[in-house]
Amino acid sequence: MTTSPIRVESLGERIGIVQTKYFTFDELILEDGEKLGPVTVAYETYGQLDSNRANAVLILHALSGDSHAAGLHEGDKDPGWWDSMIGPGKAFDTDKYFVICSNVLGGCKGTTGPSSINPKSGKRYALDFPQITIGDMVECQKKLIDHFGIDRLLSVVGGSMGGMQVLSWLSKYPDKIRSAIPIATTAKHSPQQIALNETGRQAIMADIDWRSGDYYESNPPAKGLSVARMIGHITYMSDVSMAEKFGRQKKANESKAKFNPDFEVEGYLRYRGDSFVRRFDANTYLYITKAMDLFDAFSGNPVDDAFQNVSAKILVISFKSDWLYPTYQSQEIVRACKIAGVETTYCEVNSTYGHDAFLLEIAEETHLIEHFLKKVFYEYEVTGGYGLRRYSF
Amino acid sequence: MTTSPIRVESLGERIGIVQTKYFTFDELILEDGEKLGPVTVAYETYGQLDSNRANAVLILHALSGDSHAAGLHEGDKDPGWWDSMIGPGKAFDTDKYFVICSNVLGGCKGTTGPSSINPKSGKRYALDFPQITIGDMVECQKKLIDHFGIDRLLSVVGGSMGGMQVLSWLSKYPDKIRSAIPIATTAKHSPQQIALNETGRQAIMADIDWRSGDYYESNPPAKGLSVARMIGHITYMSDVSMAEKFGRQKKANESKAKFNPDFEVEGYLRYRGDSFVRRFDANTYLYITKAMDLFDAFSGNPVDDAFQNVSAKILVISFKSDWLYPTYQSQEIVRACKIAGVETTYCEVNSTYGHDAFLLEIAEETHLIEHFLKKVFYEYEVTGGYGLRRYSF
Repeated sequence: MTTSPIRVESLGERIGIVQTKYFTFDELILEDGEKLGPVTVAYETYGQLDSNRANAVLILHALSGDSHAAGLHEGDKDPGWWDSMIGPGKAFDTDKYFVICSNVLGGCKGTTGPSSINPKSGKRYALDFPQITIGDMVECQKKLIDHFGIDRLLSVVGGSMGGMQVLSWLSKYPDKIRSAIPIATTAKHSPQQIALNETGRQAIMADIDWRSGDYYESNPPAKGLSVARMIGHITYMSDVSMAEKFGRQKKANESKAKFNPDFEVEGYLRYRGDSFVRRFDANTYLYITKAMDLFDAFSGNPVDDAFQNVSAKILVISFKSDWLYPTYQSQEIVRACKIAGVETTYCEVNSTYGHDAFLLEIAEETHLIEHFLKKVFYEYEVTGGYGLRRYSF
Repeated sequence: MTTSPIRVESLGERIGIVQTKYFTFDELILEDGEKLGPVTVAYETYGQLDSNRANAVLILHALSGDSHAAGLHEGDKDPGWWDSMIGPGKAFDTDKYFVICSNVLGGCKGTTGPSSINPKSGKRYALDFPQITIGDMVECQKKLIDHFGIDRLLSVVGGSMGGMQVLSWLSKYPDKIRSAIPIATTAKHSPQQIALNETGRQAIMADIDWRSGDYYESNPPAKGLSVARMIGHITYMSDVSMAEKFGRQKKANESKAKFNPDFEVEGYLRYRGDSFVRRFDANTYLYITKAMDLFDAFSGNPVDDAFQNVSAKILVISFKSDWLYPTYQSQEIVRACKIAGVETTYCEVNSTYGHDAFLLEIAEETHLIEHFLKKVFYEYEVTGGYGLRRYSF
């Protein structure tokens, strides 16, 4: 396989061994009024919370992410999913900041979701789990922040679905955040994005092993989930990055059976699909993609009304070759912020990596985020956290 | 549902009632040397072959097309798939030209394919059908042309996979065609295109009803084929055309069951997927998408060597918003033609319809093709069909 050089540089030191922790609370009132409880949140933290509790950065993960954003789990070879961005001397400098990352509500990596035990039945929720929203995920994170006694976050940061949670934080808790960094995201899914998610959901539900979600005592819908993930992977890369990585390179054929992979790209997709199945729950895939599709940062209202009470500084980042969350969607966010008079910086990074760029363009992101965060942090220190709205150096 | 105005104009008269005909020959030697036979080709013709047999236009269909390109079948409401382009006074003017369209080899609309009876076993071929190529489809069409006693085609024309067949005709029978019109196509699939096809194939093969292709005596893999078609439909439209057609319009909910369609676009995709299943064979989908992926008009050789013996005039058409067969792929074809000194005209049509534009931008295509064909036809009449290479008005 021809592989292009991967630009994931480590611009600082590793954190070392980390552990996932769990926080449980009795009840969450969902946006639609339904009550869910008890709820457990899986989270990790890196660095130290300072005495003012003013240096906390909340990292929000994408569809298939989890709370393990940095460092190594005991015995593991691979670090957390954004390890190149989090650590001493890195963009999210753990010598300065207290970094928190939690698994989203509805997830399958320790936070309560459809694969959790429903206390009412003693069995897995499966489709008895309520349809949660991006806003419900944020409520869950707010409980965790409260648990730490943090009144105001230095920053909320996330790419893709993580970016949607950032926008939801801005709407729901504008006075609880001093800065926000939505990356490669959108205020609302276009019909193309909904269609891609819906096709993945259909692939899962078409699998006979799905059994209307009741598969926990038998085989999971592995083939359907694998197809859903394959669709995902195509959308995460760009036409150019696929051409650079695979070209029309033929696969050394293991079998002459019909419709076995002929091309490297086919083998890669099957591999990625199969490995995803081992680490992800199909019902979580259904719930979370639906939450993304239903999300609308403007709640159907005109752009002018959004972000009116926001005093946070915003850094919006998009990537030129990202066709899943195209640049025009980031520009819509910037426009809404500007209309509301919010101090907003926007950068379109000239990457060929497509949507994956938010996980790969580490040097660019480090450069942008490092200085942005320092400025917000310094501003807090000189003003004591007051009078920040429209304050400017 | 919000629908944008469809620009499918009828720029001439209808042909009226037509019938599909069948031509059977004993044996086809495939590109890989294997023999297949007997082979039946389903075809339709419109207009009259002139006394010189010099006015024949061969129309080549796309993945899900068939031989019914124009006119009405007895009792049908909807005409053939390119009816707006074929008929008296239309782009392919049946008052002047003899238009032929046949179902491709491997198809499921009357031409021999995996759902046909294998004479050796007396049962359906299923996966015993050989892996055919775009070149094999062309060989089949050549037999049909010979059957009509046509020595030289006035034009070979096709969009998408039809365009690949056009390019294969140029390579295999450069002296048998006076002009060629590849539309919204490519000389070879990119890894992104292969990946999209492969995901569709995986969806079909993941369906328990597929039974390694042996489903003809039971239920077809309807759910898998439906998912494959949904992926297809997303790639046939553009982000803009989906936004114009559906926006985030919610569906009037028939059921409150979880993961039922919330948005119009979801309902549309399911409908398109389900209706495709009733008219298409899943094994044909596997064979034909694989033939597309394996196709390489340059056979892995440098562009400079391609089309060296071509004397046909070429008109290449692409569409600005087509992200499945992007404009750069048409430009590669143009470049190869120009390097070979072939008289080539190229037009990128400024459409928002995505890949579907080749079926929808009738006014633009009519304008371009009508004049191009007239010029080629007139040139034949003044020169008697000789000395055309690099001839120019």
